[in-house]
Amino acid sequence: MTVSPDRPAVAVDDLHAAEEAVREQGLRLTSARRLVLQALFAARGPVSAEEIASGLNGRLTASDLTSVYRNLETLEGVGIVRHFHAGHGPGRYVLEGDREREYLACEVCGRVEAVPPETLDPARKAIASATGYAVRFAHFPIVGRCDDCAVHSG
Amino acid sequence: MTVSPDRPAVAVDDLHAAEEAVREQGLRLTSARRLVLQALFAARGPVSAEEIASGLNGRLTASDLTSVYRNLETLEGVGIVRHFHAGHGPGRYVLEGDREREYLACEVCGRVEAVPPETLDPARKAIASATGYAVRFAHFPIVGRCDDCAVHSG
Repeated sequence: MTVSPDRPAVAVDDLHAAEEAVREQGLRLTSARRLVLQALFAARGPVSAEEIASGLNGRLTASDLTSVYRNLETLEGVGIVRHFHAGHGPGRYVLEGDREREYLACEVCGRVEAVPPETLDPARKAIASATGYAVRFAHFPIVGRCDDCAVHSG
Repeated sequence: MTVSPDRPAVAVDDLHAAEEAVREQGLRLTSARRLVLQALFAARGPVSAEEIASGLNGRLTASDLTSVYRNLETLEGVGIVRHFHAGHGPGRYVLEGDREREYLACEVCGRVEAVPPETLDPARKAIASATGYAVRFAHFPIVGRCDDCAVHSG
């Protein structure tokens, strides 16, 4: 289910634009796909396939988990959706927006935060300078302890 | 199979010391456990359960994958072994050494590199300063493109 990070991204601003983009990519806009898109917009942030299938805990219509995974994969294949891995938790899915985001995940409380890439540019430069590695924290986020948990766990 | 990163670490220098440590932790030194320890020393670096079960591609006796996983988990529970997650690949296992290591994984060629923590201290400081997150790259390594792959993939 890995999608190349180099596939073209299709930024969509709202549900209507997302539905148009699905059709423009030559896909049928099935009710299952519409539900997945609706959930991604309603979530207003990274969301797991399980959360989508549950209808975001009852806020939307619940759907079949296998179907959700299949549709997320299809939407990711055409660049409308992408996923990242937040530590041990399930994969998280987001809509392609008009701006790139990188992520931090707290291994204690499970919090996931999105930051604009410029926030992590100093870290990126320090890593490149020390190791030669070029890093984007978009697919594999930084996993650590958030400021709250770092304080309380010493 | 997650083990707390705060469990005590038992550093072992050679196979004999590792076998002693197993007994000191109140575990039986079964032939399956001895094989796992032997493979971890023979590998001289991070190794997957699959590689251990294959006998490191025929260099050692092959064993049952389920048994390898179970014994790795047991050895990790008492602090002799630990694992980390290198991107999409399988978990990698290492013996606890007398020095902490952090890891970098290349998402293109699959290379995994161990570095002493001081190498990543500047990156750690840059991340803390920008986000408040306290990060060790020991359990979830930095995933990016190594210097060779970064050059060739642009």
